[in-house]
Amino acid sequence: MKLRPIGVIHSPHTKAAGTPVQTSLAAGVEGTAEVYPQFVSGLKDIDGFERIWLVYWFDRAKESQLVVIPYLDTASHGLFATRAPCRPNPIGFSAVRLLEVRGNLLRVGGLDVLDNTPLLDIKPYIPSFDVFPAQRIGWFGTVTSTSTTADGRFEARSGK
Amino acid sequence: MKLRPIGVIHSPHTKAAGTPVQTSLAAGVEGTAEVYPQFVSGLKDIDGFERIWLVYWFDRAKESQLVVIPYLDTASHGLFATRAPCRPNPIGFSAVRLLEVRGNLLRVGGLDVLDNTPLLDIKPYIPSFDVFPAQRIGWFGTVTSTSTTADGRFEARSGK
Repeated sequence: MKLRPIGVIHSPHTKAAGTPVQTSLAAGVEGTAEVYPQFVSGLKDIDGFERIWLVYWFDRAKESQLVVIPYLDTASHGLFATRAPCRPNPIGFSAVRLLEVRGNLLRVGGLDVLDNTPLLDIKPYIPSFDVFPAQRIGWFGTVTSTSTTADGRFEARSGK
Repeated sequence: MKLRPIGVIHSPHTKAAGTPVQTSLAAGVEGTAEVYPQFVSGLKDIDGFERIWLVYWFDRAKESQLVVIPYLDTASHGLFATRAPCRPNPIGFSAVRLLEVRGNLLRVGGLDVLDNTPLLDIKPYIPSFDVFPAQRIGWFGTVTSTSTTADGRFEARSGK
């Protein structure tokens, strides 16, 4: 099970500190998903979709920790009950707005990803596949933090 | 960028033909995500979540094709405008209902995954992170197929 990047994500966020922790908190943040030329034929018809999943590699995340204190809480939780990046397989996905397609460049909005993040996949966001009600949201339901941005706690080379 | 399974998904679906194409079409299908013992501490507090993302490896998908005719259409589309499994990085994710946690076993509902699929990650499904309106859904908006299950077209060893 080996991965090969299909492209790279260009974003205004150069380090974790200050980066919005989720797409929904990054509405105004625009960037570009650059797809390498050999994969461009896979983009046919993608411009019909309002939103796409970017699947990427958390290349600057610390080594995997199985218990973490997530950005939005002060208590520790199992890693798989969080979206923290320091995962055994550091794969992330974000449902971003697709603003414009120009050749191999996808301009996107709502970007909560660091600059130069390796892009692994793109999938269309389809509400009938991706949208579900979920009343019970565990520890997240009692979060009192008003912070909407990350800090350097999960970054391997944050300089902190 | 190498992956290591954190577990395995047990499902009643042993081959692609007949498997629901998406979670939302598999509401009655139950199965189990088995997490390997060395990762069990990462499951702390996951039982508070009604729904979880299973992230997995499409281990039986054919080699990557950049243009495909998806299950639900008769026309071809760019791979990245579809959810077909034959991807450069064959990573899938499904938002399944978490029904019960017993040690390292998560009983889940709404499973659109093949039996013995390698499990790569688990993340909590959190509506404020994962749910977005999306009016424009490209070719999917004009699908007339009434089929809700896959066939063997993307399976490497389907016996077909």
